[in-house]
Parts: sequence; C-alpha cells; structure tokens
Amino acid sequence: MSESLDQLTSKLLDSYAEVGGINHQEGVNLPDKQTVNIITRQLLELLFPGFFNKNNLSGEDFARATRGLLGDVCQNLGQEVAKSLEYAPPQGLAMKNYSQAASDITCKLMNYLPRIREVLSKDVQAALDGDPAASSMEEIILAYPGLEAIAVQRLAHELSGLGVALIPRMMTEWVHARTGIDIHPGAKIGESFFIDHGTGVVIGETCVIGDQVKIYHGVTLGARSTSGGQQLRQIKRHPTIEDGVTIYPGATILGGETTIGKGSTIGGNVFLLHSVPERSLVYYEEGAVLVKPKNQSGIGGADGGLMFNYVI
Amino acid sequence: MSESLDQLTSKLLDSYAEVGGINHQEGVNLPDKQTVNIITRQLLELLFPGFFNKNNLSGEDFARATRGLLGDVCQNLGQEVAKSLEYAPPQGLAMKNYSQAASDITCKLMNYLPRIREVLSKDVQAALDGDPAASSMEEIILAYPGLEAIAVQRLAHELSGLGVALIPRMMTEWVHARTGIDIHPGAKIGESFFIDHGTGVVIGETCVIGDQVKIYHGVTLGARSTSGGQQLRQIKRHPTIEDGVTIYPGATILGGETTIGKGSTIGGNVFLLHSVPERSLVYYEEGAVLVKPKNQSGIGGADGGLMFNYVI
Amino acid sequence: MSESLDQLTSKLLDSYAEVGGINHQEGVNLPDKQTVNIITRQLLELLFPGFFNKNNLSGEDFARATRGLLGDVCQNLGQEVAKSLEYAPPQGLAMKNYSQAASDITCKLMNYLPRIREVLSKDVQAALDGDPAASSMEEIILAYPGLEAIAVQRLAHELSGLGVALIPRMMTEWVHARTGIDIHPGAKIGESFFIDHGTGVVIGETCVIGDQVKIYHGVTLGARSTSGGQQLRQIKRHPTIEDGVTIYPGATILGGETTIGKGSTIGGNVFLLHSVPERSLVYYEEGAVLVKPKNQSGIGGADGGLMFNYVI
Repeated sequence: MSESLDQLTSKLLDSYAEVGGINHQEGVNLPDKQTVNIITRQLLELLFPGFFNKNNLSGEDFARATRGLLGDVCQNLGQEVAKSLEYAPPQGLAMKNYSQAASDITCKLMNYLPRIREVLSKDVQAALDGDPAASSMEEIILAYPGLEAIAVQRLAHELSGLGVALIPRMMTEWVHARTGIDIHPGAKIGESFFIDHGTGVVIGETCVIGDQVKIYHGVTLGARSTSGGQQLRQIKRHPTIEDGVTIYPGATILGGETTIGKGSTIGGNVFLLHSVPERSLVYYEEGAVLVKPKNQSGIGGADGGLMFNYVI
Repeated sequence: MSESLDQLTSKLLDSYAEVGGINHQEGVNLPDKQTVNIITRQLLELLFPGFFNKNNLSGEDFARATRGLLGDVCQNLGQEVAKSLEYAPPQGLAMKNYSQAASDITCKLMNYLPRIREVLSKDVQAALDGDPAASSMEEIILAYPGLEAIAVQRLAHELSGLGVALIPRMMTEWVHARTGIDIHPGAKIGESFFIDHGTGVVIGETCVIGDQVKIYHGVTLGARSTSGGQQLRQIKRHPTIEDGVTIYPGATILGGETTIGKGSTIGGNVFLLHSVPERSLVYYEEGAVLVKPKNQSGIGGADGGLMFNYVI
Repeated sequence: MSESLDQLTSKLLDSYAEVGGINHQEGVNLPDKQTVNIITRQLLELLFPGFFNKNNLSGEDFARATRGLLGDVCQNLGQEVAKSLEYAPPQGLAMKNYSQAASDITCKLMNYLPRIREVLSKDVQAALDGDPAASSMEEIILAYPGLEAIAVQRLAHELSGLGVALIPRMMTEWVHARTGIDIHPGAKIGESFFIDHGTGVVIGETCVIGDQVKIYHGVTLGARSTSGGQQLRQIKRHPTIEDGVTIYPGATILGGETTIGKGSTIGGNVFLLHSVPERSLVYYEEGAVLVKPKNQSGIGGADGGLMFNYVI
C-alpha cells in the first residue's frame, strides 16, 4: 500500500465518529439482516413442507425434521425480535421483560402458520385458475415469484401486527430483492390473491385489497398527498381495491381515497387518481397510438429518424 | 417458549394433513430448487468458459476441468430430470426406464451446447452493436443481465423441447430472480437477440421472435384472450415479432394474432393490441403531454399541488 | 451416459476453439465476478459499520475489526484492479508497474470512503424526509434498496474515475441484480438523492443529476440518438436533471440535450423527449383515460370483453 493500513483505518474511524446517522457500531444491537433472511427462508419451508428439501421424508422422520426446523426458527426469530423490542420498545414494556415478550410474539406467529397456510392454498389455486401457462400447483410453488412474495408479506403483516419493528420490512425487502415485488407489511390483502410475473409491483403501506384480486407486473398502488414526509405517517394514503378486480401491467393507481369498485378491470399502463364504480372498465383509447410507415415519416434513417433511434 | 415446541409441531403437522395442495411431503420427489439453481450456474460456466473462474487455466488443465464440470452437470441434471419424469411421465415411458431416459435427455442437451454457444456469440455481438455504453464483449458477458437471461432461456427451451416438465420453468425463474427478465421457456427466439437493461421484461410462452430483435427494459409481450385459465393452454396467445424490430422501454404488445412487421419500431410505453405492417413506426403523439408552469397551475403548494405530491 | 463423457468433452472443447468472442480460457485473466461481489459487499460494510454485523463491537474490538476488513478489501480489490489494468491498460503504464498502480488506485478509493460516507448520510436523510412509510434511519439502511444502489454507484463512479475498466460495471450490475436499479457508473449524481422502491429504474452513462432529486421506480433517464452503436461512445446521450426535481413512477426522459429545469415535477408514465423550464409540471391530461361500465360496453364477457381478458 502507498499509504499504511493504520492510516487508512484511522481516517475511517474518524469518519465513523464524526458523521452521524449511518453508522451503528454503538447503540442497541439491531436485527441482523443475514439472520432475518435465513429465518424468512425457513418460514417458507414450514409453510410449504417438502418443497424446498432435497429428499422427501415421511412419517416419523418428517415429524422429527419439522420439529427441528420449527425449533430453529423459534430460537432465531426470538433473538431477533428481542433486538427489535430493544430498538423500539412497545409502550409499557419493561426492559427485563423483552426476552419473554419476544418469545411470546414468536410463539404467536408460529400459531398463525396453519391459518396462513390455508390462505396461501387459496392463493395457489387462484394462480392456477388465472394463468394458462401454469401446468400444476407444484409448478406454482416451485416457480412463481408472486406466491413467494405474498407468502412473505402475509408473514410480515402478522409480525407487524404483533408490534415488531424493522423485521417485517426486512422480510418484505428480502423478497423484494428476489422477486422485484415490493409489498409493504402494512398492506391488508384478501384471499385468492394472484400476482403474475410481478417484477416492478409496488403496494403501499395503507392499501386495502379485497378477495379474488389479480395484479400483473409493474402495477403501482401508491399514494398522492398534499405534502410529503413524516407528517403523513399512519394516514391512509393508498387505494382500496375491492373484490374481483383485475389490474393489467404497468397501471398506476394512487391516493388514499381512491376506491376501485368490485369486479372492475383496469387496463395496461393506465394512470388513475380517482375512484371508479363497481364493474368499471378503465383504459386508454387505442386511437391515441400513431402507426406510420417509416418511409413516409420524413424523418429518415434506418430507424425512421430521431425519435426512436433511442439507446441508453 | 410460552407453548411447548411439541404442541406447535403437532398443530403444524395437523395443518399439513388437512390443507391440500401446498404441502408435498408425500408423493413423488420433486426436482430440488437449490440443485436446479446450481446446475443452471454450471451450464452458464460451460457456455462461457473461463469467465466465471477465479483463475485461468490452459491446455491440459483446462480440458480436465471442463470434463469434470461436464461430468458434474450430467450427473446432477440426470437425477433432477429423472424426478421430473417421475412427476410427469412422457406417454408410453415405463417407470423402469425413467433413469435411462433421464440420462439420454441430459446427454442430448449436452450435445446441443456447441450449437447454443454459436447462437449466443451472435447475441453478444448484437449487444455490442446496439449499445454505445458497452466497451467490449468481455463487459457484455460479465455485466449484461440480458445475456444471462437469454442464455438460460435458450437452455430451458431445449430442455422443454425434450419433454422435461418443471425444470425449464425453474431455470428461467432462477434467472428472472437475478435479472428481472421473465422469458417463458416455450418462447421461440431468433438469432442476434438483445435485451438492454432488462428489468421488467416479460415474454410469454407462445411468443415467436425473429432475428435481430432489440428489446428494452419493461417490455411485455403478452396475451389477451376471451376467457382466462386452463382452457387456453397450448393455444397461441402471445405476439409474433418479425426480424429487425426494436421495442422501446415499457411498451406492451398483446395477443396471439398480433404480428409486428419486419423492421418496425415500437415507441416507449406504447400499448398495442393489433398487428402493424412492415417498417411501421408506432408511438404516442407528444402533444398529449402537458407542460405547465407550477406558479400558474392554480393548484398551489411547493410541488404544484395535489396531483403530483405523490408519495408511496 | 448414452454417449461417453470424453466424447461430449471433446465436442465442447472443439466449440471453444472454433467460436470466438464468448470464451475466455486464454488471454488475460479477467476480474472475477464472485470476488468483485464479495468486495462490493465488504465496501458496504465499511460504509455502514455495524449494520451488517451479527453482533455489535465496541472500542478496541471495533477498531481491530475495521482494520481487518479494510485490509481484506485492499488486498482483494488490489488484485482485481491489477487484472483490470492488464485487460485495459491506461496509456503510458508499463506492464511491470500494474501491480503498484493497482495498489495506488485501491488506496485512493479507500481514502475517498469518508467523503462518500458524508454524501450517503445526506441520501439517508433525503429518504427519511421523502417517505412517510420510513420509520427511522435504521430502517432505511437495513431495508431501502435505493440506498444500497446509490451507495454502490457512488463507489463505482469513483473507481471508474480512477481509470479502472470492467470492475465498476460489475459492481453496479451486482446491485442491479439485487435491487432492479440500474445506474451506470458514469452517471454524475448530486447530493440528497432518493430513489423510492426502485425496481426498473435505469440511469444512463452520461446523465447529470443535481441535488435534492427524488425518483420513483420504473423511471428511465435514457438516450435517443441518430444512429446506434459504438460511434456514440463518450458523447452526452442522456438527460440533465436539475436540482429539486421529482420524477414519478414509470416516466421516461430521453436525450443528451434534454434538461429538466430546477424544481420541476414529472408525472407518472410521462414520455418526454425535450427540455422543460424551471418549475414545470409535466403530466398527461386525465381525460385520456376512458371509464366505462362493463355491462354497457357491448363487448360482453365476465371481464368486459376481449380487450382486457388479458393473460400471459
């Protein structure tokens, strides 16, 4: 090195001491990203047993393996939840009770697993019903990112409801990184929910979604508001989507007071800022698209001229 | 734990017994996700030798390493293909012949590798020709997700053609997770294909794409149909894109009878449900966009009022 | 195997010898993808100390751990930079000096870390100010992909400025795969930059972005040009975005001469090919969207007819 390692280290340590806000070597122990990722994977295994194992097990062996995995998750999640409670303690909880409270919360989430499985089995069925390219339930569980995303969100939503900070967002962000689907743990999502393809989907914190809703990739259910920032926390900023709605790729629907009525269909790339009644069909007139022959366009060149000789 | 691990395990096992469809601890042994991921990575290494190795090898060492890697892939893929045949047996294949059939299929795929490499070398050249930001072929192989996506799809397409279920979709889903590019193994894609950036691209199962086609991120080549679901399996539901077509970011083209004629250019964000003739230029009139000064908009606020004070 | 492993290996080796361009078993040793990924992760750890560690350290232990990590990064990065110099030597650098030059470059990048941390702390603050769903700085560092993407781009931009080929693009591609955010190392980006959600964002090589800019998912800052390909290298092909601009989801802004004036707001899905003055509000008229009741649409079917009975 042209400069000694000691000098470089010393400069960096100075920077850690000076610049606030992004270093966390002091203070409480935050939940660990890597551990939360592992827990999330393990929870998926508990929800879809046998799908993520190399070899099938049966009878006693399977029961023993399930108990082992469940024990691991309880221990790991318990520890991370305790860190989260220490970071953002629920009102009225004394510090000496963090560990017990973390254990109780973890246990509650484990108790929810059978119910979450029931809901997810309807999500799988909705995917099979909604996609002619799907050949079987097995294919959906093994190869549909939308299912993985909703499974993790349903877990994170419950954990968030139990008063745990940070970890639910870390869980949904883990699956966002894997699938390109970004659903906030806060969103309330009904049964038989199907996201196809999924890349680029964003569903905001205060969204409310009914049953039998189908959403394609690139759909945004977002917020509009009179002023940004922290003053809007907790206010309903994202739309309500009623039962049986289908939303095609790239549509953007915004606003906490926007409600998409039952059974409506929203076309691709639509940008919508207001409510529509039940059984609406919302789309752009096709006439808006111009189709011109290139050799009459008068703007020359192999690609028809400037406009679309586009490269990044 | 507030509740014993045994109690929790028992509840979960009950749920596995009761809720059908999403547990697979019984029945045939499905292809393993993790193993399929490893095989896919190894196949990429065989296609682009020396690019994913820590240190270069030459001469005898390189030949030996290639033989070793090929042997690994054959064994691993053979085992997973056998599981796939057990899960969805081709007509007329007796169970005792699964293992031999799996070995034959694997061997055929390995025999296709040199041909796939030839096609991929044209894809690399197309990327270099089409992107001024690309500095070399090496950069394209090391850092262009579109190349990784098309390489995996070309492998999965061949494997699918050999009658293997599940694994081809698991392979394309692996690369979808890595790149945000979702190409169904069924799609037929010509030579010199270039996807730039790629995040959000969706190409459906029955798409047919010609040679020298260039596609940007966020492009959907999808289906429209008179009724959803499983009745549409096997029917051509996705568009045909002829030679020399360029499709800009965010364009959506739908329908099995939609054909984009040779040499056409489709503009960004276009939503297209019908065919266009050769050498068409398709775009939205720019006039549709309003540009207003904020202080004259009469809707106040630092951001110009409600409409775009948008936060998620 | 139906065919011997030796035969298959021999065919593949023939293919490696015949098809140029995509094999790299000979020639210089390229930077290793896996190692570059590890280095990038380690650099993030140095930028955000304590956030990616399982257990907190303090005092002497922390200083020792920092020194150790810094030493690792210096050594690993130094080796990869040396490969990069060998692959694309800077003018006037003799081969015998590659190793020393690589060490100097690495050392310079390490010296930049404190400055990069200062800039990133403003990016974190911008995210907290701009998103009501964000509950704390900790949540932003642990769960906001936009921050990870800009952190890696700021590192890659500096490394690129030091004359290193390939590695900066490999770094930004690593984070593109993780986040769906594709920012070229060449882009010049000001302070207090916030990308929310981020999936599908593309920012081109010659983009210039001011301070206090906020960008949502699916935004493209791309190029348009009179002819594609390598002739355009080095020319400014991508827009300039001035201070205080907000760009909503799915907007596409193209062209090297396009400038978005200070304090402007660009609406969702807008496609823009020309400059707009300071404090502009750019959006589509809402009137263009048709809202029709399904039972009066005359195109029948549960989904309101052909148009949106769309499945992929």
